[in-house]
Amino acid sequence: MSNPRQLVLNLFIYPGGHHEAAWRYKGSSAERILDITYYQELAQRAEASKFDAIFFADGPALADNVRFAQRFRFEPITWLAAIAAVTKRIGLIATASTTYTEPYNLARLFASLDHLSKGRAGWNIVTTSAPQAAQNFGLPEHPPHHERYERAREYLDVISRLWDSWEDDALVNDPASGVFAETSKIHTLDHVGKHFRVRGPLNISRTPQGRPVYVQAGSSDDGRAFAARFAEAIFTAHQTLDSAKAFYADIKRQARSFDRGPDEIKILPGISPFIGSTQAEADRLQEEFNELIQPEYSLTQLRQMIGVDLTGYDLDGPVPRHLIDTASARGVASRFKLVVDIVDREKPTIRQLVQRLAGARGHWVIAGTPEKIADNIQAWFEGGAADGFNVMPPWLPGGFDVFAEQVVPILRKRGLFREGYTGTTLREHYGLARPASIYSNQVKAIA
Amino acid sequence: MSNPRQLVLNLFIYPGGHHEAAWRYKGSSAERILDITYYQELAQRAEASKFDAIFFADGPALADNVRFAQRFRFEPITWLAAIAAVTKRIGLIATASTTYTEPYNLARLFASLDHLSKGRAGWNIVTTSAPQAAQNFGLPEHPPHHERYERAREYLDVISRLWDSWEDDALVNDPASGVFAETSKIHTLDHVGKHFRVRGPLNISRTPQGRPVYVQAGSSDDGRAFAARFAEAIFTAHQTLDSAKAFYADIKRQARSFDRGPDEIKILPGISPFIGSTQAEADRLQEEFNELIQPEYSLTQLRQMIGVDLTGYDLDGPVPRHLIDTASARGVASRFKLVVDIVDREKPTIRQLVQRLAGARGHWVIAGTPEKIADNIQAWFEGGAADGFNVMPPWLPGGFDVFAEQVVPILRKRGLFREGYTGTTLREHYGLARPASIYSNQVKAIA
Ligand SMILES: Cc1cc2nc3c(=O)[nH]c(=O)nc-3n(C[C@H](O)[C@H](O)[C@H](O)COP(=O)(O)O)c2cc1C
Ligand SMILES: Cc1cc2nc3c(=O)[nH]c(=O)nc-3n(C[C@H](O)[C@H](O)[C@H](O)COP(=O)(O)O)c2cc1C
Repeated sequence: MSNPRQLVLNLFIYPGGHHEAAWRYKGSSAERILDITYYQELAQRAEASKFDAIFFADGPALADNVRFAQRFRFEPITWLAAIAAVTKRIGLIATASTTYTEPYNLARLFASLDHLSKGRAGWNIVTTSAPQAAQNFGLPEHPPHHERYERAREYLDVISRLWDSWEDDALVNDPASGVFAETSKIHTLDHVGKHFRVRGPLNISRTPQGRPVYVQAGSSDDGRAFAARFAEAIFTAHQTLDSAKAFYADIKRQARSFDRGPDEIKILPGISPFIGSTQAEADRLQEEFNELIQPEYSLTQLRQMIGVDLTGYDLDGPVPRHLIDTASARGVASRFKLVVDIVDREKPTIRQLVQRLAGARGHWVIAGTPEKIADNIQAWFEGGAADGFNVMPPWLPGGFDVFAEQVVPILRKRGLFREGYTGTTLREHYGLARPASIYSNQVKAIA
Repeated sequence: MSNPRQLVLNLFIYPGGHHEAAWRYKGSSAERILDITYYQELAQRAEASKFDAIFFADGPALADNVRFAQRFRFEPITWLAAIAAVTKRIGLIATASTTYTEPYNLARLFASLDHLSKGRAGWNIVTTSAPQAAQNFGLPEHPPHHERYERAREYLDVISRLWDSWEDDALVNDPASGVFAETSKIHTLDHVGKHFRVRGPLNISRTPQGRPVYVQAGSSDDGRAFAARFAEAIFTAHQTLDSAKAFYADIKRQARSFDRGPDEIKILPGISPFIGSTQAEADRLQEEFNELIQPEYSLTQLRQMIGVDLTGYDLDGPVPRHLIDTASARGVASRFKLVVDIVDREKPTIRQLVQRLAGARGHWVIAGTPEKIADNIQAWFEGGAADGFNVMPPWLPGGFDVFAEQVVPILRKRGLFREGYTGTTLREHYGLARPASIYSNQVKAIA
């Protein structure tokens, strides 16, 4: 087989699964959600299926609707370090915020993760969607969207240079001569910018991957421009093939303007599959989950997406479209648009809308047979809508197992997904080059 | 046996070992210093010997004398998370700075480590000794000593409340009723202080130990007062039994004024043993290490302790005592005093002084037979100088193995050290109570 284009598949891990009522489902592991061995086993299963990576979301604040859902957060880099110790190949992607961390500290965390995992770290770069984070960090309010992205751009410049500050051959470590490091190959940054003053260098040698794989997950105009410039993979949410295609084309076009080829950015929509041996069985499974939904919770989730609280309205009445206007779109612009599109296209009742979103917070939910799921994946992959997917099982671990046992073999049979790993690093799984240090001879400016 | 007072023993891990030339010693593992499995194996050996904990130092800047020594730093919390995954009982202590981190972020890192290790996390609280850290965090200079400790006190108040913000029974996690958390038992801090404004609550439930074990490692007046109030264990450096006894008595006395009993603070001096089957063999071993010293490196180390650069002076001439005055003591007040005491007491040549310090950066270095080492440990332990020790092997892993195989059995025979673990958490190993949340009914103010 002549190495045809291969799907990227990540397992996106939410504690109980991605459906908001997953933890109430009989097959869930609700009681193990604080037990690291549960996540280690999930990662091992994903590795056994030769997935590219596992992936954790994050945010530095407690969600305000924790009463009715498993909305806690462990710190994902620590968590992945413990997972790295019991896996060998699978990539390890942690979300971290450019708004609420210091570049020197975050550079150290990811450099350590990349060293200890021998080149499997990825960074999902976010500016943080939860506005209540601000009050945990002494800020009067969450900085405006544009300002967050401005800080993010400067942050990327700084942190990339920190990771590059030791050239690859700066580490000598030769007991005989007594030279540990060739200090002429270790560079200060002396960065002075609007948001940061950072001297450097980093206090550890360059990592196996040079830098963690840069992942990005914002879809606003600012978010896309940022992604086109910096991202090596993009997580994104689409409900339809058309929407995904438009996004895909736009990103690859914008990337060209930064001299980046289409293969340098993997676009990975989320997919949350309900799988049954017949369509009816898959639909019934989805229905079972939807019956476990708690409307108190769903309505606070919806409020965070559309900026309007629909508590008190008849759940089986129409969505009061006139209450939703663009002015109320705070924070998550792209998720707002996605919801409004559903309302305008499908004219759902409030209950139908929250059920629609409960599946995976706005990501693509699909119910069907393994063949149907595989057909859709193939159609998006070959139709210019995706380079792969973030698989978001409705519940865990069972929802992943079904996908691994029933869908992955079909994708393999069609030559779309690897039989085994050919590389050892996340960059190698994704087919991305290892970046040279910007301080080395072959200078390639990062910005 | 009626449960007599037991020694605490930590393994303090420096990459190649604690002697500054350790990495050049034939028995070192210089080539493995970036390989996590090397540290995992060290932790497993310490656990096999039933040590209380392993411990990593830290600082957010590159040392400026990295040319001639292994002075890099991985991020210790990440590193310990990967070690937690392959150990079951041993405590995991990471150093982290109150000057260069945000309490919300650090609270998350340690809460995650405590959750994933099932109650084995300890925090060595430092205000950071390396002044060059400031420039990595946008500060014009390292804040003055007193100001660092002022920030540290407020930091401890904030972070303790973050760890307490979920009462122990706030996590309900009951799929049947659909209640995940009892939100009346999750508390905001609404802290507004000079250095921090933090609303909280933390975004994860209370950890197995409630809070990580609070360790402290500064010996200045400010440092001692801070330790007497907050620390549950103290790492300290002493060259003589008398100095250690005076420190021990002072801390336990100051602790009383905060209503804390002597058993609530474990005082743990460092000890770096060169072990031989005869005294002459041990002395030869130490001599072998001293011959590997690189004076260029040693003099920059000395400069950092005494604030004076002795490069250019005759290594075999006397230490020019008149150049060293208290005004030059920057940053590490306690280490300065320790060096001046050696100079005044022993009148060493410059070479003798740097060899003296090369052993373990000013900690107690002792050469002798296993019996002699055990006798000294017992004398300090029973003589009111120590509750246990930070064992700092001159080189690793061999220097630890010799201690474990030859000294530990003697301590056991004398009833001074455990045969096996009786608890599972670091608090249990140290014999420390688990703190109640300050928000729970049995309120115990932390400050
Ligand atoms: C798959 C996916 C995962 C995301 N994960 C996070 C996350 O973990 N934390 C976060 O703050 N935002 C997350 N986001 C949101 C975005 O990264 C971004 O912060 C937000 O959408 C605002 O940016 P935008 O307006 O450019 O879309 C995620 C988005 C997607 C599509
Ligand atoms: C065993 C031991 C370990 C220490 N480890 C660190 C460390 O890892 N990082 C650090 O910045 N300071 C470390 N220190 C230094 C102190 O914690 C403190 O920051 C410094 O001594 C200044 O405080 P002082 O003037 O109160 O002694 C250590 C001290 C001792 C005794």
